[in-house]
Amino acid sequence: MSEKTPAKDSPPKDSDSRITLIGTGTIGLSFAAFHLAHLAHPSQLTIYDTRPDVAGYVRAELPKYFPAETQSSLPSIDFSSINIAASLPTAVQNATIVQESGPENAPFKTSLWAEVEKHAPKDALFWSSTSGIPASQQSAQMAEPGRVLVVHPYNPPHVMPLLELVPSPSTPRGVIRRTESFWEERGRVPVRLRKEVTGFVANRLAFALLREAVHLVDQGVVSVREVDQIVQSSMGPRWAVAGPFKSYHAGGGPGGLEGFFENIGGTVQGCWDELGTPRVGGGWEERIFKEANEAYGVVDVGERDRVTRRVLRVLEEERGGKE
Amino acid sequence: MSEKTPAKDSPPKDSDSRITLIGTGTIGLSFAAFHLAHLAHPSQLTIYDTRPDVAGYVRAELPKYFPAETQSSLPSIDFSSINIAASLPTAVQNATIVQESGPENAPFKTSLWAEVEKHAPKDALFWSSTSGIPASQQSAQMAEPGRVLVVHPYNPPHVMPLLELVPSPSTPRGVIRRTESFWEERGRVPVRLRKEVTGFVANRLAFALLREAVHLVDQGVVSVREVDQIVQSSMGPRWAVAGPFKSYHAGGGPGGLEGFFENIGGTVQGCWDELGTPRVGGGWEERIFKEANEAYGVVDVGERDRVTRRVLRVLEEERGGKE
Repeated sequence: MSEKTPAKDSPPKDSDSRITLIGTGTIGLSFAAFHLAHLAHPSQLTIYDTRPDVAGYVRAELPKYFPAETQSSLPSIDFSSINIAASLPTAVQNATIVQESGPENAPFKTSLWAEVEKHAPKDALFWSSTSGIPASQQSAQMAEPGRVLVVHPYNPPHVMPLLELVPSPSTPRGVIRRTESFWEERGRVPVRLRKEVTGFVANRLAFALLREAVHLVDQGVVSVREVDQIVQSSMGPRWAVAGPFKSYHAGGGPGGLEGFFENIGGTVQGCWDELGTPRVGGGWEERIFKEANEAYGVVDVGERDRVTRRVLRVLEEERGGKE
Repeated sequence: MSEKTPAKDSPPKDSDSRITLIGTGTIGLSFAAFHLAHLAHPSQLTIYDTRPDVAGYVRAELPKYFPAETQSSLPSIDFSSINIAASLPTAVQNATIVQESGPENAPFKTSLWAEVEKHAPKDALFWSSTSGIPASQQSAQMAEPGRVLVVHPYNPPHVMPLLELVPSPSTPRGVIRRTESFWEERGRVPVRLRKEVTGFVANRLAFALLREAVHLVDQGVVSVREVDQIVQSSMGPRWAVAGPFKSYHAGGGPGGLEGFFENIGGTVQGCWDELGTPRVGGGWEERIFKEANEAYGVVDVGERDRVTRRVLRVLEEERGGKE
């Protein structure tokens, strides 16, 4: 860190990290945008992708991740100083962090990490953005398989604070600690899972709710848009401020979560008993996809992210110094 | 309405409604606070409860629902002008709206509405705050059973925008329309369900997620506090801005929700297949209740509501004129 007491909108710049990103899909570029906002100089960032036009592609696409309303708080970035590596060995040879956001394909990732390990510095951190392939599987062909851990973002990572850290059972404590510190120092919320479970935690929770949402629309109780209106007017803002356990613990009054289940445990179980179990490909798709298209067309994610940033700014201000 | 173009923080005052609230639990008082902020005069509000000290109780408790940070935007309210009714017939005899937030007990509500119907004006609206007893059951002993409909808030209703309207199959369209208009004119989000389902929609969705949260803590994957950190840093702020269908429709890119399921439908089904099914009373309680107590003690809901209001204000500003 080059400064100690940064102003709110100008975080201290990191002049020590040398970050190599592998993969230039939307997640890779979003991470690139995040890192560029925190590195002292864009030359500390290296990007590697097998697509032939990678340099031109990155220079054309990456600036789109810096929307107008955030530019006043960022110095203008010289995108041409980013290193575009011509080969994997040169991409990783000086890296302190190698962050992979490539295809969701286990053989690809497994052979990638074995190759990365041969060329990267001994103490470089190896992170995968996968949403489903456990670190223990990705690292199967490595000499030191504990080095890879999953750092799963909530999309898009240049906006959303959560990172799920999912180490393999052999990942050393020091590797986990360094990873946690990296994100915490940058104002993010890394949460380390204790087991490698399918889908990790955020998606499992969200998909549990999504399944019931699909069920209720399929049963004709509410429309796609009404589900969204309901969530946007209730759980969304509530859970932005206090997660589900904290909310229900508060809802139980002096009795806390126990009081909550004493009061309405019967209603909770009644709902649990009746939750639907639609399946992907189960026949609900045509109508629900059509409804979503009619309700939303093409969503302006730039606009969504702009509003999300405003909400997150309120939450950050409120959290300031409280945790 | 006495004004037509209100300033942001001073909504037009309603000088026509005469609202009778039955029940002075936290939901009843929260609705009282909401109505007082919108009625032209507190004498338009009548409160009825069988507790003997109701007048003193209301005068002591109700002001707590008007936190300091909202008082600048509200005229000071003369709580002593609220009518405290001595009997049910006098409580409802001049009401345009009778809103019930009494005990969650079907025989109580069923006999209450039969009695209310005898004494209230013919065109008064009858609303129940129940979270579980359908209007069709509550109205079983009425001459015109279509008059009652559920107006289920998301707690606390003086803060949260959502109202789930759940009519019985016999509720006339005009009754539903007048109820929708009432809430829409006051900046709230009434959503009408098309069927009377157990738990209605908001709680079913939330409890689906809660069940998986209980499962993942019970399995030792994450702690109670970590679940909340995850939700507060991901789905909470995201769903405050764009509900789950809209979010996944956006996540599918140009392909929309269909593209989303094409891309990661396998992962979604993988999660759905592994979702846990803990039961209320299934043995996970002791540890999870203890964790919640240790993490949160007694939650300061005033503070939570203050922050929630800030988030909702951002969302309201952004929505202004867009729907």
